[in-house]
Amino acid sequence: MTTPLVGKLALIGVGLIGSSIARAAKRGGLAGHIAGVTRSAGSRDACLELGIVDSAHLDPADAVVDADLIILCSHLGTYVDVARAIAPALKPGAIVSDVGSVKAQVFEQVGPHLPAGVHLIPGHPVAGTEQSGPRSGFAELFDDRWCILTPAADADAKAIALVHDFWTRIGSRVELMEAQHHDLVLAVTSHLPHLIAYNIVGTADDLETVTESEVIKYSAGGFRDFTRIAASDPEFWRDVFLTNREAVLEVLGRFTEDLFALQRAIRWNDGDALFELFSRTRAIRRGIIDAGQETAAPDFGRWLPSEPEDGGEE
Amino acid sequence: MTTPLVGKLALIGVGLIGSSIARAAKRGGLAGHIAGVTRSAGSRDACLELGIVDSAHLDPADAVVDADLIILCSHLGTYVDVARAIAPALKPGAIVSDVGSVKAQVFEQVGPHLPAGVHLIPGHPVAGTEQSGPRSGFAELFDDRWCILTPAADADAKAIALVHDFWTRIGSRVELMEAQHHDLVLAVTSHLPHLIAYNIVGTADDLETVTESEVIKYSAGGFRDFTRIAASDPEFWRDVFLTNREAVLEVLGRFTEDLFALQRAIRWNDGDALFELFSRTRAIRRGIIDAGQETAAPDFGRWLPSEPEDGGEE
Repeated sequence: MTTPLVGKLALIGVGLIGSSIARAAKRGGLAGHIAGVTRSAGSRDACLELGIVDSAHLDPADAVVDADLIILCSHLGTYVDVARAIAPALKPGAIVSDVGSVKAQVFEQVGPHLPAGVHLIPGHPVAGTEQSGPRSGFAELFDDRWCILTPAADADAKAIALVHDFWTRIGSRVELMEAQHHDLVLAVTSHLPHLIAYNIVGTADDLETVTESEVIKYSAGGFRDFTRIAASDPEFWRDVFLTNREAVLEVLGRFTEDLFALQRAIRWNDGDALFELFSRTRAIRRGIIDAGQETAAPDFGRWLPSEPEDGGEE
Repeated sequence: MTTPLVGKLALIGVGLIGSSIARAAKRGGLAGHIAGVTRSAGSRDACLELGIVDSAHLDPADAVVDADLIILCSHLGTYVDVARAIAPALKPGAIVSDVGSVKAQVFEQVGPHLPAGVHLIPGHPVAGTEQSGPRSGFAELFDDRWCILTPAADADAKAIALVHDFWTRIGSRVELMEAQHHDLVLAVTSHLPHLIAYNIVGTADDLETVTESEVIKYSAGGFRDFTRIAASDPEFWRDVFLTNREAVLEVLGRFTEDLFALQRAIRWNDGDALFELFSRTRAIRRGIIDAGQETAAPDFGRWLPSEPEDGGEE
């Protein structure tokens, strides 16, 4: 057999993402040995039973011994502790990466703890589902999705190349980006949408004039899909918003400003302003479909309430 | 053969909803004759070619002659003109209904034009897709979805019973509701979600610091599905917001108030407040799934960016 890309791969955290990386790495024969770390004994048993890891560990330090590539797949809030725990056990030349949704902080929380000779190449696969745990993962999760790497300007070229190669063979399209810019882009494409979804579901839940059962019964009109993101892991998202605070507040400010303009247009009966915005936003949808990040198939019985659309009134 | 529920059914507008009603009525043998109205010659040909109507008309007045049940399936903005046009041709005892997303206004815009002896029974099937036109409809669109009827307190009981029966046999679950309350409930479950989606896509489109191609490439993180609703028919939604102005402004005010509280929690690093809200919103999602209005199946590769979830950190 050919030598695998990575001799030993250590995954710190084997939830949806970590276990999917393990599956994809097994699928591609990318690692000679895969060590998985999780505090949950049940998850350790599950990973071994599923055969997606070769060894399961409670202590991160045990898992990273002799590891060539270590990927942090645990909550952002755990990075400092994990970095402290694994630092003494890392071998010279080892590469430490992660899958976190916020990147600038990795250099502050993980970087300082790593010994000289260990390379830090932060990464972020933009993919996922609303489910969690080792049994929710699947090898195809990253196929054709983008994985963003945010190495420092002076990062080791060979280390960058290996992580780039790893994700390409996992099935992803890889892009290099400056960490600060990544955090702003994701604040727009992921963090703000989640914040808005959590907020609208909370607002609906608090209304005294509309019952929760009514909100649930008539959710097919559009509200329903907001609830999917609003059902995402609370701890994970709390960490995202606290970690990417500045970028989130910046785009949230823009969102609120635009929303007030929209509110004013409704109050003052400015149909042209509404029509202009509603028409403009269609182009982005087409762009996403053209880019292969979405299909044009209708979401049967979803989103729209009765929609006469061009009901002969063109 | 048995006598159909409705002798002659006239559908004013044969877009997604109108053509789906025609298909479901054909499927159930609910009407002896189905007359469809559309200004577009192409749509008239399509309806006849698809065999979903027995006659296609340009003039609404022609279609409603001898009709027992007339359903307005055109944009809210067309109601006044349609009511004026069909009034002289309506036969005594005819029932006029609609599928509009806003109900209180039907009594103001349609009611006054109807001759004595004609019954007005407004309705709203809460179902749809983001597509439009007669070819986008399908007979199953309303199966197990809710159809809300909002008759006046003094409406004719037999007329209410017939429309109730019609929608039940179309495949829907039917509920009676006061028009004003319907408009508030839908402002929460449908109108506000659409307004928010249009706004966030517009905000992303306007950012100078993030390119449109970046927004499109990394949309899998959550933004993507907002673009589906933001691709909905601009004319239709302009009419909805202008017609249901008061209710939309009321819930929008609540939404904004809650959003500012969330913004403050992020700015002041209040992780507990974020965690509390993010945990609370999960219950509503479960309720919607339990109510059969959604499935628990994960939206593969959708919504979440890298989500370690309980990645062993429980």
